[in-house]
Amino acid sequence: MLTYHLDTGAKIPLYEQLYRAVRQDIMSGALKGGERLPSKRKLAAHLEISQITVETAYSQLLAEGYITSRPRSGYFVHGQVQRTAAVPPLRKTAKQITSVIKYPYDFKTNIVDTACFPFTLWARLLRGQLTDRADHLLEAAPPQGVMVLREEICRYLAEFRGISADPEQVVVGAGSEYLLNLMIQLLGRENIYALENPGYPKLSRIFHACGARVAPVPLDLYGLRTDLLEQSGANAVYLTPSHHFPLGVVMPAARRLTVLQWAEEGQDRYIIEDDYDSEFRYSSRPIPAMKEMDHADRVIYLNTFAKSLAPSLRIGYMVLPYSLLEQFYHRCGFYASTVPSFEQYTLAKFLSTGGFERHVSRIRNLYKARRDSLLSALASSRLASFLSISGAEAGLHILLTVKNGMDEATLIQTAAEHGVRVYGLSDYYIAGQGACPPSTVILGYAGIQSADFVNAAACLEQAWCAK
Amino acid sequence: MLTYHLDTGAKIPLYEQLYRAVRQDIMSGALKGGERLPSKRKLAAHLEISQITVETAYSQLLAEGYITSRPRSGYFVHGQVQRTAAVPPLRKTAKQITSVIKYPYDFKTNIVDTACFPFTLWARLLRGQLTDRADHLLEAAPPQGVMVLREEICRYLAEFRGISADPEQVVVGAGSEYLLNLMIQLLGRENIYALENPGYPKLSRIFHACGARVAPVPLDLYGLRTDLLEQSGANAVYLTPSHHFPLGVVMPAARRLTVLQWAEEGQDRYIIEDDYDSEFRYSSRPIPAMKEMDHADRVIYLNTFAKSLAPSLRIGYMVLPYSLLEQFYHRCGFYASTVPSFEQYTLAKFLSTGGFERHVSRIRNLYKARRDSLLSALASSRLASFLSISGAEAGLHILLTVKNGMDEATLIQTAAEHGVRVYGLSDYYIAGQGACPPSTVILGYAGIQSADFVNAAACLEQAWCAK
Repeated sequence: MLTYHLDTGAKIPLYEQLYRAVRQDIMSGALKGGERLPSKRKLAAHLEISQITVETAYSQLLAEGYITSRPRSGYFVHGQVQRTAAVPPLRKTAKQITSVIKYPYDFKTNIVDTACFPFTLWARLLRGQLTDRADHLLEAAPPQGVMVLREEICRYLAEFRGISADPEQVVVGAGSEYLLNLMIQLLGRENIYALENPGYPKLSRIFHACGARVAPVPLDLYGLRTDLLEQSGANAVYLTPSHHFPLGVVMPAARRLTVLQWAEEGQDRYIIEDDYDSEFRYSSRPIPAMKEMDHADRVIYLNTFAKSLAPSLRIGYMVLPYSLLEQFYHRCGFYASTVPSFEQYTLAKFLSTGGFERHVSRIRNLYKARRDSLLSALASSRLASFLSISGAEAGLHILLTVKNGMDEATLIQTAAEHGVRVYGLSDYYIAGQGACPPSTVILGYAGIQSADFVNAAACLEQAWCAK
Repeated sequence: MLTYHLDTGAKIPLYEQLYRAVRQDIMSGALKGGERLPSKRKLAAHLEISQITVETAYSQLLAEGYITSRPRSGYFVHGQVQRTAAVPPLRKTAKQITSVIKYPYDFKTNIVDTACFPFTLWARLLRGQLTDRADHLLEAAPPQGVMVLREEICRYLAEFRGISADPEQVVVGAGSEYLLNLMIQLLGRENIYALENPGYPKLSRIFHACGARVAPVPLDLYGLRTDLLEQSGANAVYLTPSHHFPLGVVMPAARRLTVLQWAEEGQDRYIIEDDYDSEFRYSSRPIPAMKEMDHADRVIYLNTFAKSLAPSLRIGYMVLPYSLLEQFYHRCGFYASTVPSFEQYTLAKFLSTGGFERHVSRIRNLYKARRDSLLSALASSRLASFLSISGAEAGLHILLTVKNGMDEATLIQTAAEHGVRVYGLSDYYIAGQGACPPSTVILGYAGIQSADFVNAAACLEQAWCAK
């Protein structure tokens, strides 16, 4: 007869202790396939537990297929559940080792100052949504996003980016990386996608991960070289025309028209316009989007709230051309929305009450002040004589070309030794690093306080100026 | 001299009116390429506006490349910005026409009763997070999700699903559809993925959209036929072993071991275990997951909070085998998390304070009561004599095979005419609809109140019983 020690004082119920014990014996082979188990009554008496306990354990074993029951003959161990192979121990991989060096001044580019986030207002809107929209918050959002948010996005685009879009064209998604995944499924992974080179380094990884080919196309002073675009064999091109990342080039109207013309000339050619930091333009009003000039209906407009609000919100959107809507319904329309309804409604309210406008205008001033502090700290340092600065008219970073005889790697290394982290431009080249301007580094200033730039510049001075 | 009517009373600032007017003239060709614009001073005097206004408009045109400036000679229209092609009018596609028929009783399967959502508690936790975690809420979550949530998921899995997992193995993402996209990038789209046939209809669409091939594999009484799995050429198999969707089969231990053995026998074979409704098991305690038996480290465990909490939250997770972690870091580790930090922290708190356990136990009882009401309403109706019911032990739906001589389409049609929406089983077959049991419909009961089942059954009686 099966004999187990069951602990009546244990947290695990008796039936489960019995279930586990029998299962263990079956798995180990101590109970052989086909072997008859004691009747419930007998086992209960033997183990001095109630018959109900045995019954519950047996039903569990039965439900999971460890035992079978034959009417009027009882319970039998199932024939095929013993493990024949030895069980290998679990392996653990080495955890990824990440650098833990802390820099007093880190000129990261992928950062925003979350201290500027309008937390009180956002929290109030959230609470309001909890009260006002209780039911809707739990409903799954439509695949393209909740209507009020799409309407607010259209209103914002019309007012601030000159884009006339219909909510029907808008797709809300969990960040631009997700939206790119969707877009590649929409346009097809058999396409070649032309990417700006240099450009945002994750981009080519995303296209590769999705199985699409990319063609890196170099830039000149006006942005992506359209003469090379034709040669690239691409039928879609990814652009940051408002403010190129990382070079800072603003694509002039003539070049924009050439790209639009390229798109019109081929069947199924599309332009992906990433308007990632268009809110941050300091010298004149924000430049209109290419989508505004898109009379041939070939521009997919892409933007997120990561820079303008907070990266943790994970809300981005794209505006599809009318010509792609049917294809979108067909190829991607079945996907559920990836953004919680709760966040969508709150953001819609934030937009409709003017909170977003006020917030953007406040942080634009703040970042402008930071940029000005950085520029003036550099200008009044000993670095000034051998620095050339570009890309400062917009966005949240500048480029420094340092003509002190050091190469890029040495600039980064010596800066690091003096507590300042700067980033090498060559890291942003997908291919043809040889074309990278020499001795050029990137300084993102959004995450550093205005008051700190003088000290940061002093550190750079020590690092880069001959003693 | 350029003459425009500028409206000083308009909402649009004067400089922008001027900018738009000049740009319009450039685009239309009224101002030719190379043409010289009037000086700022002259134009200001001519239009009776301030010189600053003209200057702002000109800088904007300059920034966008519509005009160029030559030192000491003034501003000139850029040579290449006129549009040569005629501008085609925007097309609009016909909006998708969706059925708007309202059924008094809709036995949908993809629904949960959001009225059961613990709204007050959730709102309290949300508010608490707003206060306690203010800073963290704005930080981008790590790619695999915030650590406290991953830890809570592991604790839950250990306690309720018998799975021992490390937070390092957990990837949190915006719903199971997104996680599947990620998983296909992880395992490779050159793989063949075996899918249960019948199964969840969106599945094969997702695999297709991602460019992966699928092999539909039929089921027998114990779940997916492992003898056909080998023949399918697949090296990954997608399973719902706790409760097959839609047939309701619970895969017994013997079959599970056979699948695990299949995985061990080939290099790089993996099992994707979708545990989508494991919380809803009514007769015995929840059956342990296959992942618990995964000694060879070949099971990817997938689950979401869509059924157990609310579909609108968009939080799912997968538990990767250790053997795939390095590959994950390499292929997908660069993707940002798709779930707002805010939701992640709130859910972690909901899990750690026991709110989730209590909620699941409450709704399990509720859904069990609904199932019982439905079963008893059917049993006491005139339908009882020619109905055969299956898949009722778990989950949120049952299968009805109706032996009254009607085929599936007629059953659906006549039910609809009597105000009841039921769903045909054949819709869930990816291929080989011929293998579909005849005259079988699916009734999801999670969205209908217990008190309504008697009326719904009466309607079905009218629809399906001979007069």
